[in-house]
Amino acid sequence: MTPDQLVRHFIQLIESKDLEGALALIDEKCEYDNVPMRKVFGPEGVRETLAPFIASCSEIDWVIHHQTSSGDATSGVVMNERTDRFKMGDRWVEVPLMGIFTIANGKITLWRDYFDLAMFQKAISG
Amino acid sequence: MTPDQLVRHFIQLIESKDLEGALALIDEKCEYDNVPMRKVFGPEGVRETLAPFIASCSEIDWVIHHQTSSGDATSGVVMNERTDRFKMGDRWVEVPLMGIFTIANGKITLWRDYFDLAMFQKAISG
Repeated sequence: MTPDQLVRHFIQLIESKDLEGALALIDEKCEYDNVPMRKVFGPEGVRETLAPFIASCSEIDWVIHHQTSSGDATSGVVMNERTDRFKMGDRWVEVPLMGIFTIANGKITLWRDYFDLAMFQKAISG
Repeated sequence: MTPDQLVRHFIQLIESKDLEGALALIDEKCEYDNVPMRKVFGPEGVRETLAPFIASCSEIDWVIHHQTSSGDATSGVVMNERTDRFKMGDRWVEVPLMGIFTIANGKITLWRDYFDLAMFQKAISG
């Protein structure tokens, strides 16, 4: 998979709630930074952040509006503009954001999402 | 200029406080969206948003950490991860963000910046 394909595959795994499959693409030293919140490191950090979130949603749909990348077949930088949608109870929570991923040797070594925390909290509280 | 070069040139014009030069790269129907704040349209919308801001800064330094793009020689999508730095009085205000630009026929038709408004306000208030 190219870096572009790897990020699309990673997001598909999250949408299908296959956390273990997604974590297999995370480098041991990966930095996962939700910029207005906190950063964590490695597959365990990603698991601690995403597992409770995935458990609280009945459906996950992360819409990639645009995605661009640079690099070669196995390493590079990927950026996307997304609307991350989560079904909580009867309604969909939607968060507009941009994300950057760096890929090295087929693993995600950085994942940083930029969004407005107040918009996110307001979307969750409904 | 390719879309990638055009965005870098646009940012250099803002850094040199050449607002008229920057506005010449903005399409008549351009959408300029500071996601957690508001969106404006066209060169006049960009002018109304940026002119007071530029006037309030003694120096502007927008650091592009990563930039990727797709498209051809005159049209495409450009995304970057930046730290936008503004010198206000004696100190530098820094805002971490990601931006997306679409370019059509050598003009910017969309410019959307994603950041956390509370981080921005806190940086300004010092």
